[in-house]
Amino acid sequence: MSLEPRPHQAMREGAEFDTIRALMARWGDLAVDIGDDAAVLAPPDEGTRVVSVDACVENVHFRRAWISAREIGVRAAVAALSDLAAMGARAESVLIAFVIPDAWREQLSDVADGMGAVIREAGARIVGGNLSRGAVFSITTTVIGRARRVVPRSGACAGDLIVVTGLLGGPGAAIRDWEVGESPTAWSRGRFAAPAPRWAEGEALAAAGATAMIDISDGLAGDARHVAAASGVRLELDVARVPAGPGIAPEAAMQSGEEYELLACIPAAAYSALAARWATLSPLPLTVVGVVGTGHEGVTSADAPVPRGFDHFATGNTLR
Amino acid sequence: MSLEPRPHQAMREGAEFDTIRALMARWGDLAVDIGDDAAVLAPPDEGTRVVSVDACVENVHFRRAWISAREIGVRAAVAALSDLAAMGARAESVLIAFVIPDAWREQLSDVADGMGAVIREAGARIVGGNLSRGAVFSITTTVIGRARRVVPRSGACAGDLIVVTGLLGGPGAAIRDWEVGESPTAWSRGRFAAPAPRWAEGEALAAAGATAMIDISDGLAGDARHVAAASGVRLELDVARVPAGPGIAPEAAMQSGEEYELLACIPAAAYSALAARWATLSPLPLTVVGVVGTGHEGVTSADAPVPRGFDHFATGNTLR
Repeated sequence: MSLEPRPHQAMREGAEFDTIRALMARWGDLAVDIGDDAAVLAPPDEGTRVVSVDACVENVHFRRAWISAREIGVRAAVAALSDLAAMGARAESVLIAFVIPDAWREQLSDVADGMGAVIREAGARIVGGNLSRGAVFSITTTVIGRARRVVPRSGACAGDLIVVTGLLGGPGAAIRDWEVGESPTAWSRGRFAAPAPRWAEGEALAAAGATAMIDISDGLAGDARHVAAASGVRLELDVARVPAGPGIAPEAAMQSGEEYELLACIPAAAYSALAARWATLSPLPLTVVGVVGTGHEGVTSADAPVPRGFDHFATGNTLR
Repeated sequence: MSLEPRPHQAMREGAEFDTIRALMARWGDLAVDIGDDAAVLAPPDEGTRVVSVDACVENVHFRRAWISAREIGVRAAVAALSDLAAMGARAESVLIAFVIPDAWREQLSDVADGMGAVIREAGARIVGGNLSRGAVFSITTTVIGRARRVVPRSGACAGDLIVVTGLLGGPGAAIRDWEVGESPTAWSRGRFAAPAPRWAEGEALAAAGATAMIDISDGLAGDARHVAAASGVRLELDVARVPAGPGIAPEAAMQSGEEYELLACIPAAAYSALAARWATLSPLPLTVVGVVGTGHEGVTSADAPVPRGFDHFATGNTLR
């Protein structure tokens, strides 16, 4: 049996299959071998295979009034793919499950274009999916990738430096502006509407010896708590050093979610070696924001109370 | 790095993580290594890795009034896992993405129990997932497995016999009864509420040389059309030979979806050899229902017009 991508199988007539055909026409050679009950995965050339799933639900993860259908697709793909980057992995294969109310049928190809652009940029392929009708639009994306060296959340050690990629605070600032009826700055809007998985940065941090890594989806403060809990350590953050976007206070930047920047813990010597060549690896800043301490697990700051970060199920949270 | 299952990572405080902890307590050692951005997959011992995704959406795929929360979980897991059985594969790993309205919070552990029972029976593990709030309850299940020999939909050849496992018609009869306010028979209800993936049957058909295989989720007539379109052949069905459940007409059995029985095409000689030892492989009947012909692709029957099968997006379909 060949493991090479095969041409798409022919599909029978019907509106459901017309929708699939329209999606596949949109995706072109990005989608491979669609049509069987399950997709065949080629064995990885090297490294370890990793898998993750993420859902984007209308009026929970986005509001249609804020961003375009294409941007919704971009965000759905990035939210899922970023989880691979945070393991030090690269994406290989994607499966997309849409729940589609009638009102969304016309916009589906724009959503597909947005997802397709991100998946193509990642060098991955769409190998399967599912279509369902339903009252609320949602996109559930399964991503499969490979890592030369997997970096979990659980390996942080006392003495490691805590680093973050990029500038934080944009998505949080954009949401705050929209919620009071104002227009966000172009930079904040772009950070919300057009994020990107940090492939090169994640791979470089993994190769350099990061002990723990996570993508910042619940806010720096919240994701630092994830690492602290998983590693059984205390993350001591220096709020003043948090790299915030233009016009954004570091405290606000710490609470901003869906950043898709990376938070990593890394031994100091490994950081020094990495920092010396970081500019050749990424155009983004890599900023030390604290140190891993000992004692009771958690997150502390010398400057201010550390916000708790996002909790999907806390009362009143209807949008992240 | 070890590829052995690791203990779950500790998770930070918060209602979302309390929900995850409650699920993991329910699943016990069925769920492994939950808590990272992505799950690590061990390389398969042998064969080919396959992956599929399937969604169950409230009021589209089920109605709460008809079946219990546990049965909803069973059906969601079976719908996804059955796609692996239909490739001749066995399941290894499962990821579960829940969208959970507040009204469903209390019932989630029963749903989890139902899914867990099916996944445990399959010999697979839960390696990841996603929780989201949302207005409509849904379960999107990603399944990863391995096959010694992958059987696609596209390999049917003229002269192959068309076979089906089990007795058809139960789910369709149950839905018809519920929709007119009557109680389905115990057999029909059981076929709707407690289906099972046909692992042994799918593996045996693959090993015996089946050329095409599919699980009957859209109805025998509809799924035969899938195979016909993918293979570029005509499936000539003999309605009178369709194995129908007690009190169910063959015509009705051909239209019944969500059966999760298998439809396969297999060369006659291979069928004869398989039929001779089928009773040692499965307690279910294996029935020849037709032959693969040539000419324009499609499905024909000498006895009656062949119904079109289920199309999720055809106007008026709100439940499959």
